[in-house]
Amino acid sequence: MHIGLVGLGKMGNNMRARLRDKGIEVTGYDANPAVSDVATLADLAAGLPGPRIVWVMVPAGDITAGVIEELSKELSEGDLVIDGGNSKFTSDFANEKLLGDKGIKYIDAGVSGGVWGKENGYGLMVGGSAENVALAQPIFDALRPEGPREEGFVHAGDTGAGHYAKMVHNGIEYAIMQAYGEGYELLEARSDLIKDVPGTFKAWQRGTVVRSWLLELMVLALESDPKLAEISGYVEDSGEGRWTLEEAINHAVPMPTISASIFARFVSRQGEGSPTMKAVAALRNQFGGHAVKKA
Amino acid sequence: MHIGLVGLGKMGNNMRARLRDKGIEVTGYDANPAVSDVATLADLAAGLPGPRIVWVMVPAGDITAGVIEELSKELSEGDLVIDGGNSKFTSDFANEKLLGDKGIKYIDAGVSGGVWGKENGYGLMVGGSAENVALAQPIFDALRPEGPREEGFVHAGDTGAGHYAKMVHNGIEYAIMQAYGEGYELLEARSDLIKDVPGTFKAWQRGTVVRSWLLELMVLALESDPKLAEISGYVEDSGEGRWTLEEAINHAVPMPTISASIFARFVSRQGEGSPTMKAVAALRNQFGGHAVKKA
Amino acid sequence: MHIGLVGLGKMGNNMRARLRDKGIEVTGYDANPAVSDVATLADLAAGLPGPRIVWVMVPAGDITAGVIEELSKELSEGDLVIDGGNSKFTSDFANEKLLGDKGIKYIDAGVSGGVWGKENGYGLMVGGSAENVALAQPIFDALRPEGPREEGFVHAGDTGAGHYAKMVHNGIEYAIMQAYGEGYELLEARSDLIKDVPGTFKAWQRGTVVRSWLLELMVLALESDPKLAEISGYVEDSGEGRWTLEEAINHAVPMPTISASIFARFVSRQGEGSPTMKAVAALRNQFGGHAVKKA
Amino acid sequence: MHIGLVGLGKMGNNMRARLRDKGIEVTGYDANPAVSDVATLADLAAGLPGPRIVWVMVPAGDITAGVIEELSKELSEGDLVIDGGNSKFTSDFANEKLLGDKGIKYIDAGVSGGVWGKENGYGLMVGGSAENVALAQPIFDALRPEGPREEGFVHAGDTGAGHYAKMVHNGIEYAIMQAYGEGYELLEARSDLIKDVPGTFKAWQRGTVVRSWLLELMVLALESDPKLAEISGYVEDSGEGRWTLEEAINHAVPMPTISASIFARFVSRQGEGSPTMKAVAALRNQFGGHAVKKA
Repeated sequence: MHIGLVGLGKMGNNMRARLRDKGIEVTGYDANPAVSDVATLADLAAGLPGPRIVWVMVPAGDITAGVIEELSKELSEGDLVIDGGNSKFTSDFANEKLLGDKGIKYIDAGVSGGVWGKENGYGLMVGGSAENVALAQPIFDALRPEGPREEGFVHAGDTGAGHYAKMVHNGIEYAIMQAYGEGYELLEARSDLIKDVPGTFKAWQRGTVVRSWLLELMVLALESDPKLAEISGYVEDSGEGRWTLEEAINHAVPMPTISASIFARFVSRQGEGSPTMKAVAALRNQFGGHAVKKA
Repeated sequence: MHIGLVGLGKMGNNMRARLRDKGIEVTGYDANPAVSDVATLADLAAGLPGPRIVWVMVPAGDITAGVIEELSKELSEGDLVIDGGNSKFTSDFANEKLLGDKGIKYIDAGVSGGVWGKENGYGLMVGGSAENVALAQPIFDALRPEGPREEGFVHAGDTGAGHYAKMVHNGIEYAIMQAYGEGYELLEARSDLIKDVPGTFKAWQRGTVVRSWLLELMVLALESDPKLAEISGYVEDSGEGRWTLEEAINHAVPMPTISASIFARFVSRQGEGSPTMKAVAALRNQFGGHAVKKA
Repeated sequence: MHIGLVGLGKMGNNMRARLRDKGIEVTGYDANPAVSDVATLADLAAGLPGPRIVWVMVPAGDITAGVIEELSKELSEGDLVIDGGNSKFTSDFANEKLLGDKGIKYIDAGVSGGVWGKENGYGLMVGGSAENVALAQPIFDALRPEGPREEGFVHAGDTGAGHYAKMVHNGIEYAIMQAYGEGYELLEARSDLIKDVPGTFKAWQRGTVVRSWLLELMVLALESDPKLAEISGYVEDSGEGRWTLEEAINHAVPMPTISASIFARFVSRQGEGSPTMKAVAALRNQFGGHAVKKA
Repeated sequence: MHIGLVGLGKMGNNMRARLRDKGIEVTGYDANPAVSDVATLADLAAGLPGPRIVWVMVPAGDITAGVIEELSKELSEGDLVIDGGNSKFTSDFANEKLLGDKGIKYIDAGVSGGVWGKENGYGLMVGGSAENVALAQPIFDALRPEGPREEGFVHAGDTGAGHYAKMVHNGIEYAIMQAYGEGYELLEARSDLIKDVPGTFKAWQRGTVVRSWLLELMVLALESDPKLAEISGYVEDSGEGRWTLEEAINHAVPMPTISASIFARFVSRQGEGSPTMKAVAALRNQFGGHAVKKA
């Protein structure tokens, strides 16, 4: 099998390597010529055997939309495009329409695993028709982890279902990370009693109810920086968490922990500039004459 | 009526003034001789007509406990002590016992109203026996706002009930302040659309569902500093919020908004030093290679 | 002044009465002939002096959109439409365009006050051009409460700003209601100590920090049903709360209390059917052998 | 090695089996003669070689306190008691004192793993002196999972640290369970799009960021009941979650996700009887005339 891969950043580059390792021929294209196998998207399309399969792995939003648009011109009837980026599921309906109008097939794929996926394999959630998914199954099998297919891959539903499942996955991920963080903070707050916080996390790796891959990463983080002294508590968020919450609202799903973990990230970037807390401080000052801290 | 008042800080000083205005004779004692009417607590006790009534208005915790202890020595059977500070309700059981062993009566009083109480009167919630409360009713009537007694005063129950009611009052207060703060922040975030944020708060003062005294204070705050530019989003918390939450836990009462408002204050004092968010940042870096901000 | 009013439900009917009381002539139209002044929207339009002003007060969403669409046909250049319903602010941009294409002017108005507005007046937040707002000012002045105009009315910004301000108002309202509810629940949980829960709320009406109009309503509710025994803890939510949260997400505004109050409503309608809690129960059973309650 | 084990319930019984499998002789005592190896605690004490080691595995609180009290009488200087139950860390200070007064040594041990521990081994967090821990190390090594000791066992600090670490572990556990539950609910809410919810969870087991042991249990639960149709969303909580939150409050540690998960359990047991939501419903009715659902 020989496929095209558009986007050779942190994720795409690793995926190209894993695919090749697993015997899939890959022609990669990236705007950065230093990592690209071909000069243009047209070259990429021209060099693939038909029916062509192109995996798109570029930043979600406008950039992905632009690539899909271009591919709709470079590819032809019977070809297949897979968007493996962190796209919003609603974009899949638009992509399917745009490409479908030219007879080009479409699959959306949520890809989890980060920088570890190259070695461990990637957790995959895909959406699309059974027929299309079957065409791409060798790619999915190369990317997913060793072990039973159904433990690292799911055909979750029709178009959009892959990105939707990945979106929910990330929402859950946010809350789990926050949960470990809160536990870490309490243990640290009682370092008078808990003499070995990194060791406590380390000991949770086997036998406990909270063991997980994220816990193992926490152990690695604490091994390299036991007090997390080098790192700032400033955390970005990406789209999936927000979309999860947006969907929760739309469907009346209560989501207290996932929302809390997203809000915690928002707050982490505000510091004492938080307008909410300025208002609270101002109110306390108004009614109680409580001293305020000057900005 | 002539009573003793121990503690002439921001609250006690105003209360002395209001009581005198209302025709109650007050001998005030404070550790600070500049504001004190007498030199010692013993002098205070000696100068009051029997049966003596002493209102204690000093910081909650050890300082209040110390004053109660001293009063148990200076006063005698049939006298009455009222703790009007922001004490934890559990301290009232101890105070009642300590004083009761000497035949001294006890009332706990939660006092709300802040610096505005001098003029507006104070909202009062009291705990103790009906007999004791009756003895102190003229004081309560002088301190509480004009209007029907039951709209600014409640005999909420036996000993501890006054401080308990005040504790819950403050828990609610925290959440309401936070709610206005969150609304303020969103309006500010859309200042492209909302051209007059202070004016919007001002307009909520009549006719709307959210009109309240705290809203009026918000209007005052925004009038003096329309962008809250001078104030830092750093907010202290006092005991009552925490005790409210502690009681909620003990009695399986879900308290999502009150807890959220307390946690928001905790976070406001951490900035990028938040251990929780350091852990979250570290995890993101571990799995995704996401850049972290150096501490 | 003589205006048209479309929608004579709970709100519209009261508003017609108040407007007439204040000397504004109103022709009302409702699909229900029993309350309508005219038979059709066309009749309404035909009967108004030009330039015509029509206030729309029907359920948000499709129904409002339908009325606006019809009005775009019945009215003509120079006329003015005001949407006073609980519409999403984004609908205002569409309305403005649709009507503007025919030279019809547009204002969006957020109206607060519920069934009490007829007597107390309505809090008003409006969006649109200064010129258009000036045309409708007599109507706003008739609807708003007595007192200084700026304490019950704000021209918050251009089109959409009125509904936006109302949306945020309702988000805040949700959280304040939840805060009182949580406090109420804790007081009730300690009815061993707090002997008079309704009396405690009643006493918060004067002098305290938490006094508000919603508190007064809580007092009324507890006066008619001191244990809230007649009422189920099942609470609907309307669009504004959800939109507030959606906007918060879009603009990275942390909103822990407002989101918590919305989620509490979602949960209140699920009971033991909550899928989240079924999953939690299933997990407890899996790891600990904890008994589960059968559905 | 030959030790005593008090308490042969779900946990104790499994632990006895595992210890014996690993070559540790165990005399078990339980109030239920059907499972007990001896008739009385005195018999247990009499039958152990000195210095005696007794592991206590009974319900936390009064029952554990009673057993410790009895053991303080049956054991003698140089013996060692280990409390392995889900006790509050503060009880360890009392136990240490009571036993220490008689020269009896004390260790607190947090034990995680539930019904799976018999086979997988138990995650262990212990508190006490290095000397005491060394005495009991063979027991810990028999109970903990295979693999490096430090991945399933930690000597977290002095007395109390073991139960403290377990407490925090359980707090984190609550939030992680809630996070999966929320994700599950959203996926189910969109079963129009996600055609295979159990398969999605199953596919998260390898390669993804959210893989964990709890996720594996979720897969098992969904395999036996794909819609969780047999189970009610009614969830108990035990002490550890509440204590975690109590400690968070005491140390100003923000804990939005852990608190949310605890509150969700509280609410799950209230249904439409929630006093908070009754209050909210009553308020909506008061201001908006919104219909309420009768209790």
